[in-house]
Formats: sequence, C-alpha cells, structure tokens
Amino acid sequence: MTVSGHQLIGQTSHQGDQAALEPVDPATGKRLEPDFPGASRKDIEQACSLALEAFGEYRETSLEARANFLETIATEIEALGPGLIERAMAETGLPKGRIEGERGRTCGQLRLFASVVRDGEWLDVRVDPALPERQPMPRLDLRQRHIAVGPVAVFGASNFPLAFSVAGGDTASALAAGCPVVVKGHPGHPGTSELVGRAIQQAAKACQMPNGVFSLLFGVGNEIGQALVANPCIQAVGFTGSRRGGLALAAIAQQRSVPIPVFAEMSSINPVFILPEAVAARTGSLAKEFAVSLSMGAGQFCTNPGLIIGCRGKALEAFKQAATDAVAQADAQTMLTSDIHAAYTQGIERLSGNANVQCLASGEEGVVSNACQPRLFTAHASDFLIDETLQQEVFGAASLIIECEGLEEMQRVAESLEGQLTATLHMDEGDMGAAQSLLPILETKVGRILVNGWPTGVEVCHAMVHGGPFPATSDSRTTSVGSAAIRRFLRPVCYQNFPDALRPHALKEANPYRLHRLLDGEREA
Amino acid sequence: MTVSGHQLIGQTSHQGDQAALEPVDPATGKRLEPDFPGASRKDIEQACSLALEAFGEYRETSLEARANFLETIATEIEALGPGLIERAMAETGLPKGRIEGERGRTCGQLRLFASVVRDGEWLDVRVDPALPERQPMPRLDLRQRHIAVGPVAVFGASNFPLAFSVAGGDTASALAAGCPVVVKGHPGHPGTSELVGRAIQQAAKACQMPNGVFSLLFGVGNEIGQALVANPCIQAVGFTGSRRGGLALAAIAQQRSVPIPVFAEMSSINPVFILPEAVAARTGSLAKEFAVSLSMGAGQFCTNPGLIIGCRGKALEAFKQAATDAVAQADAQTMLTSDIHAAYTQGIERLSGNANVQCLASGEEGVVSNACQPRLFTAHASDFLIDETLQQEVFGAASLIIECEGLEEMQRVAESLEGQLTATLHMDEGDMGAAQSLLPILETKVGRILVNGWPTGVEVCHAMVHGGPFPATSDSRTTSVGSAAIRRFLRPVCYQNFPDALRPHALKEANPYRLHRLLDGEREA
Repeated sequence: MTVSGHQLIGQTSHQGDQAALEPVDPATGKRLEPDFPGASRKDIEQACSLALEAFGEYRETSLEARANFLETIATEIEALGPGLIERAMAETGLPKGRIEGERGRTCGQLRLFASVVRDGEWLDVRVDPALPERQPMPRLDLRQRHIAVGPVAVFGASNFPLAFSVAGGDTASALAAGCPVVVKGHPGHPGTSELVGRAIQQAAKACQMPNGVFSLLFGVGNEIGQALVANPCIQAVGFTGSRRGGLALAAIAQQRSVPIPVFAEMSSINPVFILPEAVAARTGSLAKEFAVSLSMGAGQFCTNPGLIIGCRGKALEAFKQAATDAVAQADAQTMLTSDIHAAYTQGIERLSGNANVQCLASGEEGVVSNACQPRLFTAHASDFLIDETLQQEVFGAASLIIECEGLEEMQRVAESLEGQLTATLHMDEGDMGAAQSLLPILETKVGRILVNGWPTGVEVCHAMVHGGPFPATSDSRTTSVGSAAIRRFLRPVCYQNFPDALRPHALKEANPYRLHRLLDGEREA
Repeated sequence: MTVSGHQLIGQTSHQGDQAALEPVDPATGKRLEPDFPGASRKDIEQACSLALEAFGEYRETSLEARANFLETIATEIEALGPGLIERAMAETGLPKGRIEGERGRTCGQLRLFASVVRDGEWLDVRVDPALPERQPMPRLDLRQRHIAVGPVAVFGASNFPLAFSVAGGDTASALAAGCPVVVKGHPGHPGTSELVGRAIQQAAKACQMPNGVFSLLFGVGNEIGQALVANPCIQAVGFTGSRRGGLALAAIAQQRSVPIPVFAEMSSINPVFILPEAVAARTGSLAKEFAVSLSMGAGQFCTNPGLIIGCRGKALEAFKQAATDAVAQADAQTMLTSDIHAAYTQGIERLSGNANVQCLASGEEGVVSNACQPRLFTAHASDFLIDETLQQEVFGAASLIIECEGLEEMQRVAESLEGQLTATLHMDEGDMGAAQSLLPILETKVGRILVNGWPTGVEVCHAMVHGGPFPATSDSRTTSVGSAAIRRFLRPVCYQNFPDALRPHALKEANPYRLHRLLDGEREA
C-alpha cells in the first residue's frame, strides 16, 4: 500500500486543501514524500456528521460483529507488512525492533478489546426484578446496561506511532464501547497514520460496518483539533500528549454549550523510591537497570523514571556513582521530532542553570540529528521541597536524583509530589516498614505503584491503570491502557418496567449473552 | 435533641460569626428559632483540613467497620423520633406522611450502602497473575482495586430535606466509598440539617470514626459553597439543584490549580410520550395519574413530568380534556421556600405570555403561603421545535402538552430534547413499533426510560440511574441514586509485583473479603 497524503473520511479519501504537513525523517532531517495537504472545515464537519450517522447502527452491533471488526483491524494492520515498519521507522527515528514490538502490542490490544467486547462485562448489566408484593409500595422491574456515549475524537500521540496513535488504545477502546472514532493524526508520523487508517477502512468495509465508523484527519497547527473537540457531534475526547495541549482541549470541551469529557493523559515524572536496604544490596544492578529504563527510546515514555529518591548515606553515594557511570555510557538516540528535541534541550538548560542542581552525567552526544543526550542530575530534598520547577517534566532521557536526610524527609518529598502515572518502590525485606509508610501517600498520588521494577513497559491487561491524579491525567477515575479503558466511553441507562420485546438484547429475560449480571445486588455465577 | 444553630465541625460544634440564616416556615411565613449565624472562613478551612486528616484512616477502615458506621447513622436518625419530622415539616411545608416516608428512604439508603460496602463489589478487584514463562517477556503480577478519591463536599438539596440532604444519597455514597464528607447545609431547612448532622456526629463517635469524617456548615449566600469547592483538601463535589448553581460550582472546580469533578444533578423536564393506542385505551386513567404525578409535593421533584407528547387526534383531545379537568381540581401545596415560589410564578408568567402556548388548566389557588397553583399548558410541536424557551424547566407543578402531527414529528421532538433524567413511554401492544422507533433516540438523551409509569418516585436499588446527559447532570457516566452512585467517589490503583505483606487487604492472595474478582479477565464465582 502506498501513502497518498489523503484525508480518510468514512470509506472515502481525498486530498485536503489547507496548508500541508511536510513529513521529515528526524534522524536525517530529510523530507519524506508525499505532503499531506490539511483538512478543511468541511472535511472536519463531514467526518463528524458521518460519525454521528454511524453511531446509531454501530453502537447496537452484536458483540460478535464488533469483536470481529476489532480483530479484522488487527489482521489488516499485520497485512501491511514491512511497508508499515519502514515508514514508521523513517518518520520517528525509532529502531526496527521497537516498531515491530509496538505493532505486536497494538494488534494484541485490539484482540484484547475484541475479547472484552465478547465477554460483555463492560455492559455491567444489573437486574432488580419486580417485587409486586412489596409493602408499602411494589417495586417495578429495573434493569441497567451501559451504552456508548457517542462519536469520540482521538488525538494520536507522537511517542507511540502505533500503540497510542490511529489504532491505539483510545481508538480500540472507543470502538469496543460502540463509539465511532474520528482521529486527528499526529503530525510527526502522518504516513504511518494513513497506512493504519487505511487498514481500519479496509476492516470496516470487510465487516460491513456503517460508513463513518472511522475517519482520519491531518493538518498543521491546532485548528483541526480545536474544531474537532468543539464539534457538536463529538461526545468525548481521548488525548495523550503535553499538559498544555491537554488543558487547551479540556477548556474547549468545557466551553461548549454541551460540555463533554476529555480524557487527557498529560505529564508525569514517575518517582522511584530506592529504599536503603535495596540500594545497599543491589547498588550496581539498580544503577544499570535505571540507566536502561531512562535512556530506552530516547526516554520518550510517559512512564520514564524522571525522579529517583534515596536516603543520604554510603549506599546512595555508591548508587549515584554507578548511575553516573551507566548514564555516561548511554547511547544518544534520535528524538521523534525536532520540536521534541528542542523542548528537551530547553529542559536540560533549565536544570543545568539551577544553582541547587548538580549535573552528574551526560551520555553520548550522538551522531544522528535530533539526538537525545541522556542526562543525570542531583539535588537535595530540602531544595526540591521548595522549588516547584524541579517537578516539571523534561520529556526525554533526563532524570534527577533527590537526596533525603532520612525516611521522614522522603515522606515529605512523596507528599509534595503532583499527581503521577506511576511510583516505584525498590525494597528489600528490611525496607518493609519504610515501604508501608510511603504506600498510603503514594496511593493518593499515582495510578500504578510498582515494587522492584521500572515503570517503563506498560502491560496491556485487565488490572492495568495507566492514569492518575491531575496533572498525570484530567480524570483520575480512568485508565487509558488495559481493558478498563473502555469505561471512559460508556454511560449507564436504566430501563424500568419494559416488556421483554422492547428490551435491548443484553437485558432480555433469557440473558442471551450469558452475562454474569448483578441480580438484586448479587453477582450471578 | 434541640436545635442549637451551630456549625458542626468534626466532633465539635460552635456558633458561627457571620451573617445568620433565619429559618422560616414557608406555609405561614413565620420565623423559626434559632438563627444560624454563618460559618467563617476559618470554620470552612478547619472542616476541610480535618476531613483530609481523617481521610487516611477512614478510607482504610474495614468493610465491616464502615458498613456498621452507615447503619449506625440510620439508627441515630431514627432515634431522633418525632422531633425530626416536626422540624422538617415546619421548615419545608411538606406533609407528615411525605417526611416520614422520606426518613424511611434515607435510612434504607444508608443500609443499602452498608450492604454495598460489605459486599465489596465496588472495590472492582482485578488480578492478572504473573506469567514468568511468557515469551518474549514475562508478565509480572498486577492487581487493581478502587480507593476513595478524598474528602467530598456535598450540597444539600431543598426538595428532599432528608433523602438528598445532609445524610442523603451523596453523603451515603461518599462515606461508603471511604471519603470524609463536608456538607453545606441547604438554607431552606437548617434545623432539620443540624438534627441529622448531630445524628451522624453521634454515629461517628459511637463507631470510633476519625474526627473530621463529617462536618456540616451553614450560612447565607454562595460564599461558603464556593470556598468549599475551591478548598484544596476537597477532591470531589456532589450537588443537586439548579442548572445555574451546578454550573457555577463546576466552573470553580475547573479553575482550581488541581481541578476536581463536580457531580451536579441540575435540570430536567422529563418528557412523557403518550402513544396513540395507550391514549385511546386508557384516556381517563392516564390523565388522572398524570395529574397526581404532576402536583404531588407541589411538583418539586427532579423527575416531575414537565412535558407530555402526544399525536393529534380524538384520543389526544379526550386526554387533554380529562387532564384539564384533573389538574383544575389539583390541590395547591406550599412550596419549599419563597424563592422557589417566586421562580415558579416567573416560569408560569413566561409560559402564559408565550403567544404559541395555551393555558388549559389552573388548579386550586390554595390558602397557605407560597402555594403552588398547578398549571397545564399546551403547544404545537411545530412551535416547540423552534422555541428553546419551551424546554426550560419550571420547577413546580406545571406541565406542557405538545401536540404532534404524527409519529415522525414526535421523533423530531424527541431528537430536539436536551439531556434529561428520565423519559417515559405510555404504550399498548399496538404502539410497539412507535416505541421501538423512539427508544434509540431516548437512550442517547436520558438516564432512565420508563414504560407505563410516571417518573416521580425513584427506586433506590442497584439498577437505578438517576442521571443523564447534560444539562440533566454534569457527568452522564454517573448516577446519584442507587448503589452505582458510589463509583463517583472512587478511582482505580494498580499494584505491580507487590509482596503479599505489602498488598492492601482486598488484594491479598488469600482473598480475605471473598470477592468475586476479575481473575485474568474471568469473573470468579
């Protein structure tokens, strides 16, 4: 399949007529063909109104038909073969193994959501049967199911050109919920986006899904995204990116005459607490693992370990030395775009210019364009506690080691943190008391807590929470990874005293989907 | 127990020092003793910081301890005896039977949430066990539970002085979730509020709950509420009231440096579609039931039937005549406050002054103060479709019959509606096709759909949805009545690779709460 530079609207495609995206290989600075002329207002409106037209039919597709659609998308993405891998590598500077792994994750995620759809747990069916003899008043039959909220606007993220982009977690979970999707393609990888978008188009056609169940728009600047969020057909938004971007979209969504939810995953520095016994016992391996987690993929992960917190002492000194050595040897990989590289450079300058921050290590400079030179800094907890700028995310392979006087100061550092996606405890048995004292603080600050691991690498499963209190996300009650991500795009409806013939399929007396319903408050086996 | 006019802060109480609330009997206009001098800034801050202090301990109380606390609140409310009933009658003008029934509902609701807490379904525990042999990468053990979001501000509503007030659904569900609660008492029934607040204080003491798990503040104007929502200790808001009030609080919540969710239940006119066969078969009984539902409690229900939609014809004419007769005979009851009565009068004047609206009936004028004279109006669908003012809620016993040319126009009316709490279909077997054509439209507009009933009377159960798309509520994914209301105050946290000793009780390997966990995506029996 070749890349055409077209907007994909329902089952059609055509060239936009606005200012063009001009894709670039960030590793070489070379232009990539073709240009992507931007979507017009009319394109946006058409994509949104088609999505609304498709909504009525799509949200009531059978569980099997919808699951099959998701699986067919995965098959069609795989059928794109090496062309997709090559285009993604050229547009992002990410290595082949990483892109191939990400394709596997993306298709695995689509298949997970297919199984979630078939299982029907997400319908959350509740039945409170009629109690005609109840005194003083009889109870009528009441049943609840969840339905899709409506068309969803999804913003592709730069750092996962497959898994958080056109067919990524937001799209997969919205389609699984029964919501048509209009994607705003990320300008960093439009060719990759188009290829995946055409695979979805293909799957929608093969599965006879309604026209408009999926569209994909491209363009420069923020106008397309703003118009999408403001469009009255759109009922929810999925976004992964910067805090500024997420807050701007949330503000637009709030100002609509009918406000809608924006599920924005924004910023996180992912504190890692290295507790005394663990540091003493595993100094070298901790430092090496840290450097790997920090510099992998040029540090361009939402869950990159940007903050290490330890207690002053010999063991921490040894860890700092070992981490300095490891980071100094870390590779400089190409960053995703020149804008991201420029922001990284600015962030490094900010930290370097802070009189209370000491630079411990600079990794290799790199020979490619837009190379991310890994950096390691350190500061005292007493300074961290009074300087909010030290909590600002530097997107890329930079981290800051905070030295605390003891456990009590470590707790104060934990308490001072903004909301985060993750927090990590490195601990041995002797650290149990310290871990127990930190846990209640961290639970109120983050979406996922890890023991003896590194936060990069987010498992796509049922128990995952990729979310957390503001500013990690705009809604701490949700996750954007894992099967619970579907809940963002659902709402409950109650049906009172319905004749069985009028009930939706999931609520019929015969329980045709064989759901484990909540029957009068008890879960059915 | 006597009413003191005090602020209740944690286990203490004292008189405020700001402008005083001066409670009034709306049926007589007479002042009721004592005054309630308003809460100071310091009172608000103290209530909020105590709530935050209590949070750590309270959110980790055992399921049994928390359930017992909720049940003890119910017992303490019942122990207030006739004094509570008399005070509530005097402050609201509502009749004895209604207040007694509402007390039963309030205590039943607390006991329902006690059973919900014990059951543990709300924890939504998910376990994805480690897969050490998985290729290419092992999976680590991942577990999820839900935890309380933090202290919640609850705004008592005027129209249910018990069931939607100090110990109402918002408080019960927030306490059930593990959130301390700070209530802003409604100025319409401060004495009732204080009595119930003291019952909660008593229960908290008897159950050895942390000081600050509950506080109750009073005052005139909007400042206390605004300060509460802006206070950084508060993590979520429950509100039932006007659209203007809900939107104002939501705006404050969004402007915080850390925005928080506001769960506001605001306005709804609860359309009732009377389908042709049903109207023809049951003209008289439908009209009578309608007049009862309309005028009950002076129409002061969120789910009052403010809009009746029928198809032109002999049957509808007969229904209009019968409804006119029934409404003309309907009693005029005292409204809750003189402000509410003034707003009702304004709303009636707006409708009466609309050239396209005809007044069909005026009920009895009433002899009490602030009497709500029931009113019935009618208009053509063609006018309704182009005049947004006809969708504005008139809080009280007023309703508007919309006459459609046929089913197609009825569908257009349904499509034109704003978000609602409820929609109702009155239908016979011959109306099935019409009902099936309306259902998909109504599902996207409302939280609850009823067949052959009246929307007033909201069952407190598991399947209930008292919610709906904006402007019925500020978050269509939630309900403020029924066991699912607890979800508003919970967020998921994921625990990765935890040693069992560090895991929270609900996630321990032995499953001590015997929960039906989602184990690797399958529901445990």
